[in-house]
Amino acid sequence: MSLTNASPADAAKAAKSASHILATLPASARNDALTAIHAGLTAARDEILAANARDLELARKAASSGELSQSLVARLDLNKKGKWEDMLKGILDVRDLDDPVGKVTLRTKLDDNLELERVTCPIGVLLIIFEARPEVIANIASLAVKSGNAAILKGGKESTESFVAISKVISEALDKTQVPNGAVQLVTTRDVIPQLLDLDKYIDLVIPRGGNELVRYIKSSTKIPVLGHADGLCSIFLEQSAEPKLAADVIVDSKTSYPAACNSLETLLVQESALETLLPVAAEALIAKGVTLRCDAKSKAALANKLSASSSEKLVDAQDADFDTEFLSLDLAVKTVSDIDEAIVHINTHGSKHTDAIMTSSSELAERFMASVDAAGVYWNAPTRLADGMRYGFGTEVGISTNKIHSRGPVGLEGLMIYKYKIRGAGQVTAAYGEGEGQKRFKHERLPL
Amino acid sequence: MSLTNASPADAAKAAKSASHILATLPASARNDALTAIHAGLTAARDEILAANARDLELARKAASSGELSQSLVARLDLNKKGKWEDMLKGILDVRDLDDPVGKVTLRTKLDDNLELERVTCPIGVLLIIFEARPEVIANIASLAVKSGNAAILKGGKESTESFVAISKVISEALDKTQVPNGAVQLVTTRDVIPQLLDLDKYIDLVIPRGGNELVRYIKSSTKIPVLGHADGLCSIFLEQSAEPKLAADVIVDSKTSYPAACNSLETLLVQESALETLLPVAAEALIAKGVTLRCDAKSKAALANKLSASSSEKLVDAQDADFDTEFLSLDLAVKTVSDIDEAIVHINTHGSKHTDAIMTSSSELAERFMASVDAAGVYWNAPTRLADGMRYGFGTEVGISTNKIHSRGPVGLEGLMIYKYKIRGAGQVTAAYGEGEGQKRFKHERLPL
Repeated sequence: MSLTNASPADAAKAAKSASHILATLPASARNDALTAIHAGLTAARDEILAANARDLELARKAASSGELSQSLVARLDLNKKGKWEDMLKGILDVRDLDDPVGKVTLRTKLDDNLELERVTCPIGVLLIIFEARPEVIANIASLAVKSGNAAILKGGKESTESFVAISKVISEALDKTQVPNGAVQLVTTRDVIPQLLDLDKYIDLVIPRGGNELVRYIKSSTKIPVLGHADGLCSIFLEQSAEPKLAADVIVDSKTSYPAACNSLETLLVQESALETLLPVAAEALIAKGVTLRCDAKSKAALANKLSASSSEKLVDAQDADFDTEFLSLDLAVKTVSDIDEAIVHINTHGSKHTDAIMTSSSELAERFMASVDAAGVYWNAPTRLADGMRYGFGTEVGISTNKIHSRGPVGLEGLMIYKYKIRGAGQVTAAYGEGEGQKRFKHERLPL
Repeated sequence: MSLTNASPADAAKAAKSASHILATLPASARNDALTAIHAGLTAARDEILAANARDLELARKAASSGELSQSLVARLDLNKKGKWEDMLKGILDVRDLDDPVGKVTLRTKLDDNLELERVTCPIGVLLIIFEARPEVIANIASLAVKSGNAAILKGGKESTESFVAISKVISEALDKTQVPNGAVQLVTTRDVIPQLLDLDKYIDLVIPRGGNELVRYIKSSTKIPVLGHADGLCSIFLEQSAEPKLAADVIVDSKTSYPAACNSLETLLVQESALETLLPVAAEALIAKGVTLRCDAKSKAALANKLSASSSEKLVDAQDADFDTEFLSLDLAVKTVSDIDEAIVHINTHGSKHTDAIMTSSSELAERFMASVDAAGVYWNAPTRLADGMRYGFGTEVGISTNKIHSRGPVGLEGLMIYKYKIRGAGQVTAAYGEGEGQKRFKHERLPL
């Protein structure tokens, strides 16, 4: 990895050239590079933590004057229990995943000695814009190298010293391997982003991680495809046959286990017939965890009857906008629906196609919900918080996509691949094939993979 | 299908609603709709051909005054030998393809009674803009219905009468089936395209077929992902070990079997050591078919020595721009390269990532070329003209993509699919899982598909 001072166009061009080399390297060469990065970082622990301490000091000052949140400061600390070790382990975890490159996914005999093959290959050059979490750079660099993609990285500015120190080590490590140095480049100033977003000639995919605003800005500023999500407006439909305790547990977990996450619950849809039976159980459990319920009139009336006076203080009247809001806080919009069909229409209209769940004892209704809701994740009796690459068993993820093409949901190595078609022939010409007399027919025999 | 007079926003909104229904229909319902369309068109042959005759009459007038090309007029004629029958057969061919919806492509046991499943599903709403060939509308409508996608169709204006007649029949046919009428809509005026391109809220993918200019305009005018290709700048590298006759045959087929096609050859790269051996054989064969060779200095000098005087008249000096030009005519740019590496760099720099081939007797060099060239199709001893959905055995295609994400090369039904992740649980909560003491671990067992 180089810390690039080149112009954005030169950096992107260098990344493109590097990508063409990287794409042809065997898995062993890419894995060796990850081993070298791991060794380099292990050896450079003290320098990197010293750089991180400088980031932290600046951040603490900014926090004390109110310019930065305390939670951001906490996220910057690479010395926090287990973080450094997790970062290093993550590199080896990625190294040890199956090689995603060169998988044959289709083989067809077009004719004798004329074979079509579809083979996975890297996309090319990725531009990844991510948050100020110092350990993320090592994770993303590992994913890029493992998947055979070149990457231009831009991390949140509060971690700049850490990123620079880590990238210096990665750069030196790559110099001892077959992976070209230009394959992973770090840019440190935000002002180059608009220029990079113009370079659709060299950059094949942009992956923004971070706030809605950043993602929206990027989507509206580039012709390069963008993979990610602006919003995570996840909903749960509480159907009348749901098991009360199970539903309450899943709803509480979805809302409260990490309210700032994109896969957290934001809207609870309750079947009208369950307002006085299932909803109070869930509401009590949510309120006990500090959640404010922004209720429509029917759900509020039902709860006001059932809850204690002190719990009822956590009920407020929902505004229309609440059902289109990703709160990212301990707020939950609650809406009454007459049945599953109304729930599905509500989610398909107001949701963000991220992750939505149904709580029900009916497998028939669960399957209908999962078939009909248009989202990357559709769950039955499971919390929306499961939408995560680690939890899905992908080893790691580069982000979560709400796109309708290419990759959806948590994006691991597979989501960073495309394919090419290879044909190996023996000089056959297309003019010889056709429906006419004396013409040959294609055989189109599916061959084993 | 309805011939829509609704506003673009209303049409797109209706398509979105229809897509949500269509996505949940079983294969039998989608296939029944194709059977009904086939029957309807069969019965309405006379009316449709009468409408087509009106298109033809207008087009012939325009051609006689020089406003339209004769070749376009010929393409409009639905009464041309075999065309009507092929159109009808195409509908049944699509019907009889494997159902692309609901294929399970990943199954993982996350924990006991907690299963993750990845299932293919339709993308949603497609906007397909296509050329003035009347039979194409039936083909594209079939692909949309079969793949479970709603589609808004806009065809070339010279076929408007034919399109309207066909869409009326399709609409009546769909009315007798479970496929909602709004699932396939025809728009007939070009002025609605800019408005449709703004509707990224409802339209998930734009597929433009047709000229480079149209595709470029669309790519620069919308935030909706665009699948297709602007250019088809295909190259062949003639390596020194190639078999002379085989190479000449493939090159001639690639250039001359349909010069106006996107998969036709535009640049021939010749290894310097083959200038006086292999190139003359290929050049003679090309010139015999009427091809003009736009040669760099070295290749021209070599050919001038070897070719007859009359053949040499078809040699002209290449300009730099010729190596970035998709001629779509009987012109071919010829460039000398020292070796395979220079050929690969040339193609990766000047090509359009469509289809490129190597002529060689060395399997080692062929594999290197196919691994290193960044294109949707990379061929060994086979003509670039094979890049086609029918020839690949996909039954049909909606277009050929040079994108780097989602779908590459000829796009059949599979290219119109995305997937969703389903989780079926039993109330497990994420907070219970982790590395801490007393916490559960995910099992991540891969299950058989």
